[in-house]
Amino acid sequence: MTPMSRRKKLYEGKAKILYEGPEPGTIIQHFKDDATAFNAQKRATLEGKGVLNNRISEFIMEHLNRIGVPTHFIRRLNMREQLVREVEIIPLEVVVRNVAAGSISKRFNIPEGEPLPRAIVEFYFKDDALGDPLVSEEHVTAFNWASPQEIDEIIALALRVNDFVSGLFAGAGIRLIDFKLEFGRLYDQNDMARVVLADEISPDCCRLWDMTTNEKMDKDRFRRDLGNVTEAYAEVARRLGIMREMDAANGTQPESVESE
Amino acid sequence: MTPMSRRKKLYEGKAKILYEGPEPGTIIQHFKDDATAFNAQKRATLEGKGVLNNRISEFIMEHLNRIGVPTHFIRRLNMREQLVREVEIIPLEVVVRNVAAGSISKRFNIPEGEPLPRAIVEFYFKDDALGDPLVSEEHVTAFNWASPQEIDEIIALALRVNDFVSGLFAGAGIRLIDFKLEFGRLYDQNDMARVVLADEISPDCCRLWDMTTNEKMDKDRFRRDLGNVTEAYAEVARRLGIMREMDAANGTQPESVESE
Ligand SMILES: Nc1ncnc2c1ncn2[C@@H]1O[C@H](COP(=O)(O)OP(=O)(O)O)[C@@H](O)[C@H]1O
Ligand SMILES: Nc1ncnc2c1ncn2[C@@H]1O[C@H](COP(=O)(O)OP(=O)(O)O)[C@@H](O)[C@H]1O
Ligand SMILES: [Mg+2]
Ligand SMILES: [Mg+2]
Repeated sequence: MTPMSRRKKLYEGKAKILYEGPEPGTIIQHFKDDATAFNAQKRATLEGKGVLNNRISEFIMEHLNRIGVPTHFIRRLNMREQLVREVEIIPLEVVVRNVAAGSISKRFNIPEGEPLPRAIVEFYFKDDALGDPLVSEEHVTAFNWASPQEIDEIIALALRVNDFVSGLFAGAGIRLIDFKLEFGRLYDQNDMARVVLADEISPDCCRLWDMTTNEKMDKDRFRRDLGNVTEAYAEVARRLGIMREMDAANGTQPESVESE
Repeated sequence: MTPMSRRKKLYEGKAKILYEGPEPGTIIQHFKDDATAFNAQKRATLEGKGVLNNRISEFIMEHLNRIGVPTHFIRRLNMREQLVREVEIIPLEVVVRNVAAGSISKRFNIPEGEPLPRAIVEFYFKDDALGDPLVSEEHVTAFNWASPQEIDEIIALALRVNDFVSGLFAGAGIRLIDFKLEFGRLYDQNDMARVVLADEISPDCCRLWDMTTNEKMDKDRFRRDLGNVTEAYAEVARRLGIMREMDAANGTQPESVESE
């Protein structure tokens, strides 16, 4: 039995496991290779996905910390795990959309790929049993999921993340179509709460299209059975300059999506 | 005599020439190879710089237009020229700093390379005769260079540009240390003014450091006699994915900075 398996498991979700961290107030985020879609009706194991998401999320969160967007990220522990600050998760999936795709295309009959008039921030109530329904700010405040002040903070942070990460991907020849964020409350010594970015930012929760070919480089490859899912994630990592370091670490060179 | 030379010259500055545009309300921005520093006491011609800055500025302004930051940029006309909307320039150099370098390092005795506590927006009065002095918001409003509302808009836009362009360069392995922007007033049919980003964003007005080596990839190479100035600008363009297209257009492949 390795020390790892003796750690206390706090939660197992669809894509990650949370373990108790080494110090109070920290937890370990373990990225699994499991993929689910359509509220977990579709499932698969995609070898290498967890390793890639661990690294991509680290890369983005570290940059966000640096530009002053507070995140839960502390440091990478190993290929699949990262140490993060434990937060009180605000039960909202915060979606930022630049270009119509997925549910907003259906809801308003907007062709996929049509740029939206401006970045749109949506809230979905994070509840698998209810199918993560879209909610309005009225619902959020009435049911006390977040205060009006927290909503303002969440929107401002989500838009800053959108500007920075749109730039980050644009510099790598990738268009950020939309993405999902989760935020949490971090309490200080005086029990004052601060809103910070939590969970992950990876191709599992972004729509990423190649800037010139519009090829999908995200979880839609799994949802829509397009194949080469982890290869696409690896190409995202490579373009962000993450792969060189990874190849050195694990001696593998996933095939590029383009080369097929 | 080509049609070009018959165009009306509106202004010749240190790095660019402005010509009357083909339609009312437009002007042509022509990028020269001239480099100046220390209020034009140091001068040189750097072959190819104008072509590179034309393309880099286009690339960034087009992305900014797309994310909803209004800019003067309309379209490229040729290797050295771009069509832009004529604006009433607000006589301020708006500097955004992420990391201490240059004048802020001297003013406050902060070592170059030290990250600032947060992004800092500074205003300098754009007046070569006065040496572009630092000013406070009090000066800006007292001398009517911009209204308090315009200052708010300028700061909000400058911070959005900082988030996006920091991401853009980070995706290309480049750190955005600081940069200078100029804004102008664009009047609509009802004579309502809107603040838009004008002038250029290029290595002439940014500090750009290689993310891993800290090598300078900007005009400081000229200011500090580090050599390989246009080579560094070409490397910036290459990393942003601009060069492939350029090579096809002009058949040259400037040597990379790293290779020296
Ligand atoms: N810093 C954090 N502190 C506490 N919980 C977190 C933190 N970051 C993310 N979480 C939660 O951990 C879980 C991550 O596992 P995941 O497989 O994504 O779960 P789910 O299937 O519920 O989306 C999510 O429920 C997410 O809300
Ligand atoms: N859209 C625009 N409309 C009018 N003037 C502009 C616009 N964009 C930039 N300018 C001005 O054009 C000039 C550009 O040339 P440049 O060589 O940079 O001049 P300078 O030496 O004064 O900085 C600057 O004075 C700048 O303020
Ligand atoms: Mg999840
Ligand atoms: Mg100028």
